[in-house]
Amino acid sequence: MKPYVEMTKEELQELRKELSAQYKEFQGRDLKLDMSRGKPSAEQLDISMGMMDVLSSNDDLTCDDGTDCRNYGVLDGIKEAKELLADMMEVAPDHIIIYGNSSLNVMYDTVSRSMTHGVMGSTPWCKLDKVKFLCPVPGYDRHFSITEYFGIEMINVPMTPTGPDMDLVEQLVAADDSIKGIWCVPKYSNPQGISYSDETVRRFARLKPVASDFRIYWDNAYTIHHLYDNEQDHLIEILAECKRAGNPDMVYKFASTSKVSFPGSGIAAIAASENNLTDIMKQLKIQTIGHDKVNQLRHVRFFGDIHGMVEHMRKHADIMRPKFEAVIETLEKELGGLEVGEWTCPKGGYFISFDSLDGCAKTIVAKCKKAGLVMTGAGATYPYGKDPHDSNIRIAPSYPTLPDLKQAMELFALCVKIVSIDHILSEMA
Amino acid sequence: MKPYVEMTKEELQELRKELSAQYKEFQGRDLKLDMSRGKPSAEQLDISMGMMDVLSSNDDLTCDDGTDCRNYGVLDGIKEAKELLADMMEVAPDHIIIYGNSSLNVMYDTVSRSMTHGVMGSTPWCKLDKVKFLCPVPGYDRHFSITEYFGIEMINVPMTPTGPDMDLVEQLVAADDSIKGIWCVPKYSNPQGISYSDETVRRFARLKPVASDFRIYWDNAYTIHHLYDNEQDHLIEILAECKRAGNPDMVYKFASTSKVSFPGSGIAAIAASENNLTDIMKQLKIQTIGHDKVNQLRHVRFFGDIHGMVEHMRKHADIMRPKFEAVIETLEKELGGLEVGEWTCPKGGYFISFDSLDGCAKTIVAKCKKAGLVMTGAGATYPYGKDPHDSNIRIAPSYPTLPDLKQAMELFALCVKIVSIDHILSEMA
Repeated sequence: MKPYVEMTKEELQELRKELSAQYKEFQGRDLKLDMSRGKPSAEQLDISMGMMDVLSSNDDLTCDDGTDCRNYGVLDGIKEAKELLADMMEVAPDHIIIYGNSSLNVMYDTVSRSMTHGVMGSTPWCKLDKVKFLCPVPGYDRHFSITEYFGIEMINVPMTPTGPDMDLVEQLVAADDSIKGIWCVPKYSNPQGISYSDETVRRFARLKPVASDFRIYWDNAYTIHHLYDNEQDHLIEILAECKRAGNPDMVYKFASTSKVSFPGSGIAAIAASENNLTDIMKQLKIQTIGHDKVNQLRHVRFFGDIHGMVEHMRKHADIMRPKFEAVIETLEKELGGLEVGEWTCPKGGYFISFDSLDGCAKTIVAKCKKAGLVMTGAGATYPYGKDPHDSNIRIAPSYPTLPDLKQAMELFALCVKIVSIDHILSEMA
Repeated sequence: MKPYVEMTKEELQELRKELSAQYKEFQGRDLKLDMSRGKPSAEQLDISMGMMDVLSSNDDLTCDDGTDCRNYGVLDGIKEAKELLADMMEVAPDHIIIYGNSSLNVMYDTVSRSMTHGVMGSTPWCKLDKVKFLCPVPGYDRHFSITEYFGIEMINVPMTPTGPDMDLVEQLVAADDSIKGIWCVPKYSNPQGISYSDETVRRFARLKPVASDFRIYWDNAYTIHHLYDNEQDHLIEILAECKRAGNPDMVYKFASTSKVSFPGSGIAAIAASENNLTDIMKQLKIQTIGHDKVNQLRHVRFFGDIHGMVEHMRKHADIMRPKFEAVIETLEKELGGLEVGEWTCPKGGYFISFDSLDGCAKTIVAKCKKAGLVMTGAGATYPYGKDPHDSNIRIAPSYPTLPDLKQAMELFALCVKIVSIDHILSEMA
């Protein structure tokens, strides 16, 4: 196909008519497709149904150390669950705390605690005139919502194919002591599916922030969420790297089993240095008597160990892989060579990122919606919902069935074409 | 028995010798008894083991409205769980939000949110010079820990047999706009087992606080935790009473199934007015995608409805009743007429409150410990751990077996006798 920008006005107008007819045809189908969130599909949930059978009234709900999981207590999680999640998070069991069902909740609580009580003895952020966070963009909307909710100023840092622009990150944290954190999804990032390069991680570990309470918020949400067996991205483990670099306290690492077992009822965890964990435990013991240990035990009994968990993730991959490939194939087939957008081809995670021509994303998403396809809102991948180029659209292939997904992507590509033509025509006028 | 104070020095000294010998004998038994916390016993946990069987891989984990409990979403709880907990909390299902496994966590989060974001638009408490809470005493140590952690000044309000001293409460909240809350366990209170009288509840609902962001923290932890079928305390429902009194927004009501199903993995809830819930939801949607719906469904399938839950509580009562009665009997038998202490005789809840002679509580608890019996720390029932009379001791009969409990109470009574004699003798000197 010829790039649209190389086509004449007449050619574009002619093409526009054809595409409009196709769009009307789509509208006639009365579709109800949802690609807005990174929700696992029913098929994926089914592979974890064995979770419901591993604990019965005939089973002993006691840990190896004698802890009765049914009763109160054990603030930081049962030993077995710490081992399992430590293996998943590539840290020592002593360096993690197990929480409830949501790592987002852990991140929220971490920011909230810093607001009211500071970080390892620093001034509570609510007492400061200004608190800022660095936000690699495009990024995860729920991260940005937390910092926005607490009135924390967010500074965009562009993503590159190897991670955030580290020149900028280094420069900013070394210059401004009101910068207290940076949101990272370092592996199969949301939404681009980028994994930070070795150099990026090393530079993170060697940051020299002026703020002693600066922390890297390392949300390793997709740590074992590969699509392929052999082609897997590898990420340098950040806690160990920070320790080697002499910055052991500079990072909080988050993860959960939300996209391993059940999204509604997984277990979440934080990993950090001993100093940080001591600081966190001071607060945690006030907040709760303990998180749900029965659910921790359920996870341990179901997965057995990290090998069991990795094997389980292959089942997820078998369901996700064709969906990712269908998205990429459709984009290649429908938009390849048209020069109206670019997209990523991740090897894991939950998202594909699409960048349209500048100024087109909102219109594309709106056009999809009018034909029954809900995409993540354009702008959602930027702080305050403001994409300065109005170009980024997050594609979440997991939830629809494969036939629905193919249909959805055809519709999406069609909307991209129409909106791009309109855009090019308006530039010609 | 003759009251100790009416005995001569010589009589007391003689008695002291006998009691010392008995104490030595106890020490020789090498006991390890724990009455420190309101923890259900293993026997109580066993009656909920059916919880582990109601959801299997053969079951459909879908709600009546089609919600798949395994996946993300439903911030305020599934409809069926809201109905069940609404019935337990005696409010409408529309007026509650279901949380995770810990009502303490809900209370913490409520105070934390008020610190960072205020209450329904009020100034965030962290921006105020002074924030104060009223604390009916004796009360629940974990409540006091939350307010202490946030630097909130705590003001003691004496408990009476009908609830907190309402004259004082009314006077304080009407005079001081830095008073933002009051901690209440209104039914079978911790530690006294007192239920607030109708008049007390009505006066609560009619409070005229100068602070518009003043809230009653109504922790109805023991709402269905009766010991007897016919002799049950009744509490006026506070949300409805506040509404009738023209103060619909003045109360947050908390509860959980921690002492109904499993302490480690129950479900918690808040009940409040629509205005308050809207305010809370603004924060909650930032904090999490949703709490554990599978566990909510598990509770619904296990209990069926409120009748099932009430029937279940009869099984708890059958285990708890003999323990409460054993404590009271031992206190009556060992200490009756000696005038060295007073105790409550609750009809529900988890605690019995004992008041020793002034200045004796710490020593009694220490003496128990030296013979292998751990009681709740003396002072724990007061803010900052400071009992001004050093007299209150919380007795938690639930955790030990009945034989252990009887032994523990004999030891406790013995320690009370010894310490009281020492105290009286020192006063004579």
